[in-house]
Amino acid sequence: MSFQYLKPNRNARFKDRYTTKVDETLTPYEERKTGDIGVIGLPFSKTSISLSGASEAPGTIRKALGSYSTYSGEKDEDYENMKLLDFGDVPVHPTDTGETLKRMQTSVKEMLETEACQKYVMLGGDHGVSFPSISAFKEKFGRIGVIQWDAHHDLRNIEDGGRTNGTPFRSLIEEGVLWGEDLCQIGIRDFSNAKTYADYAKKHNIHTYTMADVEQKGIQFITDQVIQKLENKCDTIYLSVDMDAVDQAFAPGCPAIGPGGLTARELLGSVAMASQHPLVKGMDIVEVDPTKDFRDMTSRLAAHVMMRCMYT
Amino acid sequence: MSFQYLKPNRNARFKDRYTTKVDETLTPYEERKTGDIGVIGLPFSKTSISLSGASEAPGTIRKALGSYSTYSGEKDEDYENMKLLDFGDVPVHPTDTGETLKRMQTSVKEMLETEACQKYVMLGGDHGVSFPSISAFKEKFGRIGVIQWDAHHDLRNIEDGGRTNGTPFRSLIEEGVLWGEDLCQIGIRDFSNAKTYADYAKKHNIHTYTMADVEQKGIQFITDQVIQKLENKCDTIYLSVDMDAVDQAFAPGCPAIGPGGLTARELLGSVAMASQHPLVKGMDIVEVDPTKDFRDMTSRLAAHVMMRCMYT
Amino acid sequence: MSFQYLKPNRNARFKDRYTTKVDETLTPYEERKTGDIGVIGLPFSKTSISLSGASEAPGTIRKALGSYSTYSGEKDEDYENMKLLDFGDVPVHPTDTGETLKRMQTSVKEMLETEACQKYVMLGGDHGVSFPSISAFKEKFGRIGVIQWDAHHDLRNIEDGGRTNGTPFRSLIEEGVLWGEDLCQIGIRDFSNAKTYADYAKKHNIHTYTMADVEQKGIQFITDQVIQKLENKCDTIYLSVDMDAVDQAFAPGCPAIGPGGLTARELLGSVAMASQHPLVKGMDIVEVDPTKDFRDMTSRLAAHVMMRCMYT
Amino acid sequence: MSFQYLKPNRNARFKDRYTTKVDETLTPYEERKTGDIGVIGLPFSKTSISLSGASEAPGTIRKALGSYSTYSGEKDEDYENMKLLDFGDVPVHPTDTGETLKRMQTSVKEMLETEACQKYVMLGGDHGVSFPSISAFKEKFGRIGVIQWDAHHDLRNIEDGGRTNGTPFRSLIEEGVLWGEDLCQIGIRDFSNAKTYADYAKKHNIHTYTMADVEQKGIQFITDQVIQKLENKCDTIYLSVDMDAVDQAFAPGCPAIGPGGLTARELLGSVAMASQHPLVKGMDIVEVDPTKDFRDMTSRLAAHVMMRCMYT
Amino acid sequence: MSFQYLKPNRNARFKDRYTTKVDETLTPYEERKTGDIGVIGLPFSKTSISLSGASEAPGTIRKALGSYSTYSGEKDEDYENMKLLDFGDVPVHPTDTGETLKRMQTSVKEMLETEACQKYVMLGGDHGVSFPSISAFKEKFGRIGVIQWDAHHDLRNIEDGGRTNGTPFRSLIEEGVLWGEDLCQIGIRDFSNAKTYADYAKKHNIHTYTMADVEQKGIQFITDQVIQKLENKCDTIYLSVDMDAVDQAFAPGCPAIGPGGLTARELLGSVAMASQHPLVKGMDIVEVDPTKDFRDMTSRLAAHVMMRCMYT
Amino acid sequence: MSFQYLKPNRNARFKDRYTTKVDETLTPYEERKTGDIGVIGLPFSKTSISLSGASEAPGTIRKALGSYSTYSGEKDEDYENMKLLDFGDVPVHPTDTGETLKRMQTSVKEMLETEACQKYVMLGGDHGVSFPSISAFKEKFGRIGVIQWDAHHDLRNIEDGGRTNGTPFRSLIEEGVLWGEDLCQIGIRDFSNAKTYADYAKKHNIHTYTMADVEQKGIQFITDQVIQKLENKCDTIYLSVDMDAVDQAFAPGCPAIGPGGLTARELLGSVAMASQHPLVKGMDIVEVDPTKDFRDMTSRLAAHVMMRCMYT
Repeated sequence: MSFQYLKPNRNARFKDRYTTKVDETLTPYEERKTGDIGVIGLPFSKTSISLSGASEAPGTIRKALGSYSTYSGEKDEDYENMKLLDFGDVPVHPTDTGETLKRMQTSVKEMLETEACQKYVMLGGDHGVSFPSISAFKEKFGRIGVIQWDAHHDLRNIEDGGRTNGTPFRSLIEEGVLWGEDLCQIGIRDFSNAKTYADYAKKHNIHTYTMADVEQKGIQFITDQVIQKLENKCDTIYLSVDMDAVDQAFAPGCPAIGPGGLTARELLGSVAMASQHPLVKGMDIVEVDPTKDFRDMTSRLAAHVMMRCMYT
Repeated sequence: MSFQYLKPNRNARFKDRYTTKVDETLTPYEERKTGDIGVIGLPFSKTSISLSGASEAPGTIRKALGSYSTYSGEKDEDYENMKLLDFGDVPVHPTDTGETLKRMQTSVKEMLETEACQKYVMLGGDHGVSFPSISAFKEKFGRIGVIQWDAHHDLRNIEDGGRTNGTPFRSLIEEGVLWGEDLCQIGIRDFSNAKTYADYAKKHNIHTYTMADVEQKGIQFITDQVIQKLENKCDTIYLSVDMDAVDQAFAPGCPAIGPGGLTARELLGSVAMASQHPLVKGMDIVEVDPTKDFRDMTSRLAAHVMMRCMYT
Repeated sequence: MSFQYLKPNRNARFKDRYTTKVDETLTPYEERKTGDIGVIGLPFSKTSISLSGASEAPGTIRKALGSYSTYSGEKDEDYENMKLLDFGDVPVHPTDTGETLKRMQTSVKEMLETEACQKYVMLGGDHGVSFPSISAFKEKFGRIGVIQWDAHHDLRNIEDGGRTNGTPFRSLIEEGVLWGEDLCQIGIRDFSNAKTYADYAKKHNIHTYTMADVEQKGIQFITDQVIQKLENKCDTIYLSVDMDAVDQAFAPGCPAIGPGGLTARELLGSVAMASQHPLVKGMDIVEVDPTKDFRDMTSRLAAHVMMRCMYT
Repeated sequence: MSFQYLKPNRNARFKDRYTTKVDETLTPYEERKTGDIGVIGLPFSKTSISLSGASEAPGTIRKALGSYSTYSGEKDEDYENMKLLDFGDVPVHPTDTGETLKRMQTSVKEMLETEACQKYVMLGGDHGVSFPSISAFKEKFGRIGVIQWDAHHDLRNIEDGGRTNGTPFRSLIEEGVLWGEDLCQIGIRDFSNAKTYADYAKKHNIHTYTMADVEQKGIQFITDQVIQKLENKCDTIYLSVDMDAVDQAFAPGCPAIGPGGLTARELLGSVAMASQHPLVKGMDIVEVDPTKDFRDMTSRLAAHVMMRCMYT
Repeated sequence: MSFQYLKPNRNARFKDRYTTKVDETLTPYEERKTGDIGVIGLPFSKTSISLSGASEAPGTIRKALGSYSTYSGEKDEDYENMKLLDFGDVPVHPTDTGETLKRMQTSVKEMLETEACQKYVMLGGDHGVSFPSISAFKEKFGRIGVIQWDAHHDLRNIEDGGRTNGTPFRSLIEEGVLWGEDLCQIGIRDFSNAKTYADYAKKHNIHTYTMADVEQKGIQFITDQVIQKLENKCDTIYLSVDMDAVDQAFAPGCPAIGPGGLTARELLGSVAMASQHPLVKGMDIVEVDPTKDFRDMTSRLAAHVMMRCMYT
Repeated sequence: MSFQYLKPNRNARFKDRYTTKVDETLTPYEERKTGDIGVIGLPFSKTSISLSGASEAPGTIRKALGSYSTYSGEKDEDYENMKLLDFGDVPVHPTDTGETLKRMQTSVKEMLETEACQKYVMLGGDHGVSFPSISAFKEKFGRIGVIQWDAHHDLRNIEDGGRTNGTPFRSLIEEGVLWGEDLCQIGIRDFSNAKTYADYAKKHNIHTYTMADVEQKGIQFITDQVIQKLENKCDTIYLSVDMDAVDQAFAPGCPAIGPGGLTARELLGSVAMASQHPLVKGMDIVEVDPTKDFRDMTSRLAAHVMMRCMYT
C-alpha cells in the first residue's frame, strides 16, 4: 500500500519546485562517491577556557543552510548542481581530550584521503579544532598557508592550561606544522590580546592586520595583500574563520564577544575574495556558540561564510 | 576505504551501550513492516484563534523522546523491544485549510489501514487536528469513546470563525462521528469556557469533570469512572490530551496557559491508568507550542505522556 | 460612508458571540455610573528595596482578564452582567514619592466616595501601595481587618530606608490605622524574615500562619479561622495578596521569589473562601513584576485571584 | 464629583508639556474627518510559508510611535500638527483566507475612497498583504509604480502553495495590476532567491538592485535612479518596505533574517529620499514579527521608517 | 581623609539593621579560624555527557544566600551567630580532567583536616564531583552512608565514556569507597535509567525509592526509613542532592529536566529531616546549571536546601 | 596548615600568566593610596521617567573589564602598570531622592579631593547622575567644558517631573554650573527631542551635532571641532557618554533604544580622540540598563569606552 501524502522517511517541509535550498545539495558521503565540497563537523569545545557550547554549532550551521538557496544573484549562477558531501561529525569522547583530538585529526585526514572533493569545510567547535584540522591538511597537502580572521592571536602558552582554544596557532608553529610567516591574521582587536603574544607574532613573522588597519586600508586591500603573501610560497591555503573577528552586533553568539569588530559585510567580502584563489582547499568556521546566540544569527552568518567560500 | 570514527549517515550522540533511548526504538515505517506503536505527526495549527506554533511540536516531542529510556523502573520492565513505527508528518498546505484537513484524515486512515500496529499516537498540532484524526478512527474501528483531558470544552460554534481549534468536538458531534455520551472531559477549568458550551455539553450528555471534581474526588477515581462509562458501549477508546489541562507551572508552553490546572503527576497517572484498558487504540497530544515553551518542558511532559500510554 | 469591516475605534480581536471575556465587562468609570466591582491601578514600585517593575502590573493584569471568560463552570453561573468599573491608574510623579503616596490615598478615597460599587480591587505596584490604600479604606469604612497572603511580615523599621515595600503594615500599625490583632498573615515563609519582625508581630498580636501551618492544618482550615477572628470585631475586611506568598514555580514573576510557598490552587481556594464573606470590601494584589515574569504567568494568576474575589 | 488625579478613560503615562509623541497625533478616523496620513493595520500572516507572528506588528509599531517625538531636528520642523488618522485593523477571519484577502482589499479601498488624507501607511502583516493593498491603490489611482525594499523578489509560483507571502508581486503582475517595468526592487540579496525568479524579473523588465549594487553605487544614487524611472510613466508611486531588506543585526525580528543586508541608516535614508516625491501616496511595512524580535527593535525601526515617510 | 558615604572595599547593598542575610555569615576561611559550617565550591562539569554549565553554580548559590535571612520562623530561632566558613572554589584545570579530580579530592580532604567545622557543604558542579568529595569524607571519617536524592541511579559503566557525571556511585562502589548497602536513593524516576543499572543497584543491595514510592508512602516516611537503615552501621552520613530529583517545574535549571519528580516542598522537608541526624557531616548539591535556569530559581532552591541542612 | 589549591579569599578564574585583565588593575582605594584612574559607581536610576535598571550597570561594567586585557595592540603599549583605584559605589537611599543626589555630589567631590588620580570615571546610573557629578567637578576644577554623546538634548523642563534623567544639562545651566556655550552635544537624533529643547539649546549657544552631521562630516572631524571649541576657554573638559547615542544594534541595552545612531566604532573612535586632550579629567558613562541588555553587550561597549578613555 502506498500513501497519498505521507513520506515516512522524509521531512514535510514546504517545497517550492524551482528553489533549491543549500541543505538539499548536502548528502551523506558514501564510499567512492565524489562531490565538490566536503563537509565535516568537529563538535568539540570542552577545552575552551570559558564554558562554551560551540560543540552544538555543526548542527545549527547545517540547519541554517536550509534557509538559503543555491542561486547567487550577484553572479547570476545557480550552484544547485554543486554537490556537498557530508562526512558527518567526529564523535567526541566525553572525558578523554587527547583521544578526541586524535579522532579529529585522523578523521579529517581520512576525509582528505578519499580525494572525493575539491574543497573542504570544517565546522567547529572552538578554535582548538584548528590544530588537528590544519595538521591533517599539512600532512596531505604540504606547506600550508593560513588566513585567520580573528579578534585574537590564539598564540597562548600551553603551560597554564594545556591545549585550550587560545593555543592552536602557537601549537601549530611549535610543532612545526605551520611557519609563522605563512600565517596571516586579520581583525586583531585592541585590548583583546597580551603583549607577550603580539611579540611572539612579530618574532615569528606572523602577518597581523588589526581593526585599525581594516578601518584605514579597507578589508579588500588587506585580503588582496595576504593572498599575495601566501600564493607563491605555499602549497595550499587554509582559511580559519573565528567568528569573533566580527563585531558583537553581527555575531552575538560567539563566546568572546565585544564591540569594534568587522561588520558582517566586511567578513563576507573578504572570505569571498580569498576563496576565489585556486590554492584554497579548506576552511574552518569556529567559535559559534548556538546556546548563547540570538535566533541563530551567528550560525546564519556562518552559513553565508560557507556559501561565499564554496560558490566561487 | 573505511573510517575509524566517522559515520557519515549517523549522528554522533554519546551512546551508553546498556541504555536504549526511546527515540532509538522509533524507525520509519516501510511497506509491510509491523510494530507496536504507530506515530504520526499532524503539524497543523494555522486555524488556531490565537497565533500558535503548535505545528512545531511533532519535532520537539520526538526529540524529547531522546532524553528518556525505554526502561520502566516502576514496573521493572524494559520496553527496548517494543517497536515504534514513524509514519512521518502529514505535509500541510501553506494556504488551503480544507486541503490540509483532508490530507490529515486521509493519512491517519491510511496509517490505520496498514494494520501495522496495536496502538497509534498522533502528535499535533492544535486541537483542530482531533477532528480528522478521530474521524479516521471512527471509520476504521466503529463507535468511538473519547477521553479528553482539557481545560476547555472545545465545543465552540462554527459560525464565528469556521473550524478553529476551539471547535473539534462540536464538529465531531454534529457530523455524527462521536456521540455526546461517549465523550468524557477531565480537567475543565473555571473561567475558561462559556455558559453556552457548558449547556451544550449537558444537553448532549457529555461527561465533564472539572478541576473542583479533581480536587475533591481525586484523579484516579475519576479516571476509573470514565473508563467504566465507555468500556461497555464503545468499540474503541481514543485519548485526546490537550496539554493545557495542566497548570501553567507544569506546561508553560501551551498557547492558552493559566493557573489552577492539573499537576504533571496527576496527568501522567491518569493517562497511565486509562491506557491500560485494551480498548484504547489511539491517543493524540495537542496544543504544545514549542515556540513559547521554556526548555521544551511541555514537549518533555508530552513525551512522558506518550511513554505512559505506550508502555502499559 | 460606512465601512464593511473596519471599526476605527475598536480593536479587531476575534469574537465568539457566546463568550464574554472578563475584560469586556470592564468599562471606564463615568460620573454617576454604578457597577459591581471598582478597579483602580496603583502603578508604583519606585520605593522597592530592589529594582522592581511592579509598576507595570496594572496593565498586564487587566490584559490577562482578556484571556478568561465570565462564566464559572464550578458554580454554573455566568457573571457577564456583573459590571466592572475601571477608575484608571493613579498618575505617579517621576521623582516625588511623598506626592505619589498622597495621590494614591486621595484617589482610592475618592473612588470609595463615589459609592459606585460593592467591592473594589486595587492593582499594585509593590506592597508599599497597601499603606495609602488601606488608609483610605479605614477612613471610609471604620475599623478594618486585613487578611494578608505573604511570605514576609512587611513590618520593617522605617529608619533604614524610609517607607519601602517592606514597611506597609508597620506603618499602618504605628499610625493607628490598623490594630495588630486585626491583621492575619498567611504563608509566612522560613528564612524570609528577621526575628525582630516576628517578635514585633507577636507583641502586637498579629495572627501569623506559616507554611508549616499550611502544610499541617490545610489552607481551608486556616482561612476559615482567620475569617472567624475578624468578622465580629471589624467593620470591614480587606484582602491584601502579595503574590510572593506563592511558590516561585507558580508565580515566577514576583520580585522576591523563592521555593516552598503556596501552590496556585491553595491561594485561589483561600481567596475564594475569604471573599465570600460579606464584610470583604476591598482587595489589593501586589508584587507582580511583569518585566521578570515568564509569559505573564504571574499576571494570569493575579487575574484568577481577581475572578475568585469578584465572582462569589 | 470630580477626581484630583484619576482620569478613568486616559492612560497615566508621564507627559512633558512641551513634547508631542507621534502616537499622540494618531486619532481614530470618524466620518468626514480629514487628516494628513491615514494608517491602517493589515494583521495577517497566516499564509506565510514559515510560522509568522507578523500579524502582531500593527500593534507594536503603533506602540513604538509612542517612543518618538514629532519634531525633526534635522529639518528643525515640528510635525505636531500633522494629523494621523487611524482606520483601525482589518479583522481577519480565523480560517478563511480568501475572505480575509477580500476584506483587506475592500478596506484599503474604502479608506482611500474617504479621500481623507494625502498619504496612507499600511502596517502588515506579512508581504502577502501587499497584494490586496496595491490592488486597491491601483483601482483608486491608476497606473502604479512600486519601489520595493526587499531581500527577496517575492515572485514565487502560485502552484506550490497558493498565494503565500512569497508571491505578491508575481500575482500583481499576472493579474495585470502592476507592470513589471513599474516595479523596482532594492536590496536583493545573494543566496536568497531562486534563479527562476531572477529570470522572471528580467523577463518582465523589473528593475532590481542587489546588495552589491548598494555597496558599489550607494543607496542614495540607486534611490534617485528608481524615482526617475517611475515618475514620468506612473500615476502614483507606492512604497513597499519588507523589513528583511535590512541586515539581521538591525532588524532581528523579521521572519527570514540573514546577514549582509542594508544598515538601518541606509534604509532610513532611502525611504526618506523616495518619500519626498509628490507622487508617493502609500507605503506598506511588512514582515516584522514581534514575537521573534528583541525589545521591539524591528518595530522601532518600522516606526522610524513611517516617520521618514510621513514627515517630508 | 575619610568619606561620608563611600566604602571602597564594601558593596553598597541596602542594609536593614535588624536583618542578617545568610551570606553575611559567610566569611573566608583563614588559618586556625573555626566555624559551624564549611562551604567549598567544586565548579566542575566538563565531563558531563551533555553540555553543562553546572560549573557556574557555586557562584549563583552563594549569591542566592543573599536573598534569605538567618532566622527560621518555624523554629523561632535566629542562626545569625552560626558561622559559615568559605574555603573558596577548587581551581579546575582547563584541559586535564584527572588533575582536576585530584585537586578536588585533595582540597575537600584538606578542608576536613582543618577540623574547623561540624558540617560541610560541597557545591557542585555536576554529579561527578561526588566521587572525589565522598572519597575524601571516607578517608577522614570511616564507613560512610549516603542518602542520594536523584532521578537517576548514576551507576553507569565507565567503559563508554570514562568517569562522567553518570558514574560517580558506580565508581565509589567499585573502588571500595562506598558499600552498596550503605547507599540510599530517593526519587528514582521512570524512563530515566537503564535496566542494567537498576539490576546493578539490586545486586549491590542499594536501597532505592522511586517516585511511585514517594507518592504512595510519603517522603517523610521514606526519609525516616533510610536514616534508620544507615544510622547504626555507618560512621558518618553524607547527603548527596542531585537537584534533578525535583520536577522540572520546581527546578527548571537542571541539565536533565523532566516531569513527574519531587516538589520543592517534598525535597526541603526530606533534607531537613535527614539533616537533623547527628551523623550527618556533609552534603553536596549538584546538577544546577545556572546558564539554563530561569531567574536562578534552581540556585534559590539549592540555597534553601543548604539552609535546611545547616540550620537544624 | 596550608592548602595545595584552595585560596579561600580569591576567586578561581583561569589565569594566563602573561595576560593582565583590566579588572586585575582595579583595586579598592585606601587612604593615601594614589593611582592613575579613579573609578566610582553612581548606581542610581530611580528618577528615570521609564522603569530603568541602569542602577545595575556599575557592577556589570566592572565585570566586563574582566574580559579584556590591558594591552593595546594598536599602540603596542601595555597598560598593565596603570593603576585603577576603585572608590566603590555611592550607597543610594531607597526612598529619599534628594538625599541620594547629595550623597553622589559629596562622594564625587570627596574622591576628587583625595587628588589620588589624574583622571576619573563615573559609572552611572541614568543620565541624572551627571548633575551631581559635573557639579562636583566644577567645584574642584573651575570652568568646565562638556562633550556629551547623546541622542537627546537632556534639557527638559523641571516642572513636569522634577529632576529626572531628562533634565541634567538644563539644571546644570540654570544653576550656573555649566555655560551653554561650553556644552557640545554629538549624535542628536531625529524624532527624539522636542522643538522647545532644540530652541533652548540654540538660545544658550549649546553646540549640537546631529546624526546627519555625523554622516556628512564624519565623527573624527566633529570631535576635533568640539575639542577646539572648548580647549581654550575651559579649565577642564568632562566627557559624558550617554550610550543611547549608539544605534540599538550596537547598544541594545539602553533604556531608550532606537535606530539610526552611531556605530560602536564611531563612538569608540570619537571618545579615544577626545580623551587624548590633557584637559580631560573626567568621564561618565550612563544609561546602560543591564536588565534589558543581551549578553551584557552594552556593558562590554561601555568597558571599551573606558579603555579608550583611560589608555591614551
